[in-house]
Amino acid sequence: MSVTTLSTTPQDLSACGTGPVDVLDRAEAERRAALLKALADPVRLQLLSIISAAPGREACVCDMTEAVQVSQPTVSHHLKTLVDAGLLTRERRGSWAWFRLDEAGLAAVRGFLA
Amino acid sequence: MSVTTLSTTPQDLSACGTGPVDVLDRAEAERRAALLKALADPVRLQLLSIISAAPGREACVCDMTEAVQVSQPTVSHHLKTLVDAGLLTRERRGSWAWFRLDEAGLAAVRGFLA
Repeated sequence: MSVTTLSTTPQDLSACGTGPVDVLDRAEAERRAALLKALADPVRLQLLSIISAAPGREACVCDMTEAVQVSQPTVSHHLKTLVDAGLLTRERRGSWAWFRLDEAGLAAVRGFLA
Repeated sequence: MSVTTLSTTPQDLSACGTGPVDVLDRAEAERRAALLKALADPVRLQLLSIISAAPGREACVCDMTEAVQVSQPTVSHHLKTLVDAGLLTRERRGSWAWFRLDEAGLAAVRGFLA
């Protein structure tokens, strides 16, 4: 996209006779859009739903692969996207990787949609 | 994507010895992903921020174009995406279109991130 970066937040601009306009800072808007983009996938939402509903709010990649009916490499790719976005944390136990919700990341998303 | 549709929600599948797995229904996951995708754009987040902060929580397309520093056709395209997703409502007044938050649509997003 070819949008000029806005330097401050909030920014006041007068236009159309209605007074100042408050607009979210462009860099912050890009950060939030990246988080929402990480969430905006049906398989990733299914994976989050599994982890959220699981005992202890954690799930093994092996369980998730069967439940969403995609291949394990695909599941692993989606889980990595969620970890990289700060929405999940990952822990290796023996042969398997286990995943938990990153409550801080999810709280951030809820916060900017409030 | 080539993911098989899951027929029920929640669905129980036994795997990996940890018991049943609850997973979000695939059709609902696709509906939620589409809503999040509509939000997952920096300019659209900036437009929502303007409307949210405006007096009466409504804004004219003319004000928004100047504030986000993109062309009016581009702003109109982004606003249409948000209207089509059920996140904004649109009303024509004279020469200009005015936009308000669709609180029901935004509440739905907050609800499934809760």
